Amino acid sequence: MRILSIHADRLWYHATKKTRMAEPTNVREDRMEECVVLFCCVEKLDEKDPDQVIRSATAGVRKRLAMLHVNRVLIYPYAHLTSTLGSPPVALYILKGLESSLIDTKVEVKRAPFGWYKEFEIRGKGHPLADLSMTICPYHGTECDFTCPYCHHPFKEGDAGHICGGAL
Amino acid sequence: MRILSIHADRLWYHATKKTRMAEPTNVREDRMEECVVLFCCVEKLDEKDPDQVIRSATAGVRKRLAMLHVNRVLIYPYAHLTSTLGSPPVALYILKGLESSLIDTKVEVKRAPFGWYKEFEIRGKGHPLADLSMTICPYHGTECDFTCPYCHHPFKEGDAGHICGGAL
Repeated sequence: MRILSIHADRLWYHATKKTRMAEPTNVREDRMEECVVLFCCVEKLDEKDPDQVIRSATAGVRKRLAMLHVNRVLIYPYAHLTSTLGSPPVALYILKGLESSLIDTKVEVKRAPFGWYKEFEIRGKGHPLADLSMTICPYHGTECDFTCPYCHHPFKEGDAGHICGGAL
Repeated sequence: MRILSIHADRLWYHATKKTRMAEPTNVREDRMEECVVLFCCVEKLDEKDPDQVIRSATAGVRKRLAMLHVNRVLIYPYAHLTSTLGSPPVALYILKGLESSLIDTKVEVKRAPFGWYKEFEIRGKGHPLADLSMTICPYHGTECDFTCPYCHHPFKEGDAGHICGGAL
């Protein structure tokens, strides 16, 4: 899962049009101020253990919120951060899970609807920690930022060294 | 090189603070309206052939501009789209090259300064083609969206099938 996190004065969106995988929603337009906007993109690899991805994303987001002294987030599905998108049902499961899990830890949360085209306006604060990105992987206690887009298995650094020292 | 392209009503930015790799600039604040904003992120692999990346990015951007009937772009350096960043000198070379190359083809271009923290405001149009992403690779006539982050060499699909069918 890739998350681009932007500390913003405000975000406004308006869901203009459904895609084929649109979730039903009564909230087509919303806004939030003085918040962190989480542009979220669930990847193929996340299908391996969605619950672990939720736990790890929650921990990563909370850490950054503490650093920024912010307690308010808007989860904004954004498919354009990867070339290996996860399946829509898993993506929605993870986004809803992240929402619930942050609410459980007393963070104020809104979530923009999944699978809609949206016009939006954001004003990013632009201080040194305002824009951050995270790569969340479904493994316990490991850093993993590299996946084969063909078989969707992760590479470990050792594997890569071995493979890439060869004929490639 | 990753490019996130957003068809926008407007973008405004203000360069608030230098990073260590800031380019000198007299333009700390600027705006553009009815344009395509290109959030650009030069990757390690692009160092292999920066001129080919410029040519390929120019062609990709022009194709998308034609589709959107837009002739005005703002090139916005944005490091948060990859985990394998290219070196700052190569990144600046490619961004400036893309700027010149688009100007040569009669596109109206502005470029936000490289290496600065920036506050910004963007309003994205949200129609089905408004948000697009591109992965540009430094190879002629090939599609290449997959790179080893350890050795920075590309994998071909055939290699991946072979490797990933094995012990991984």
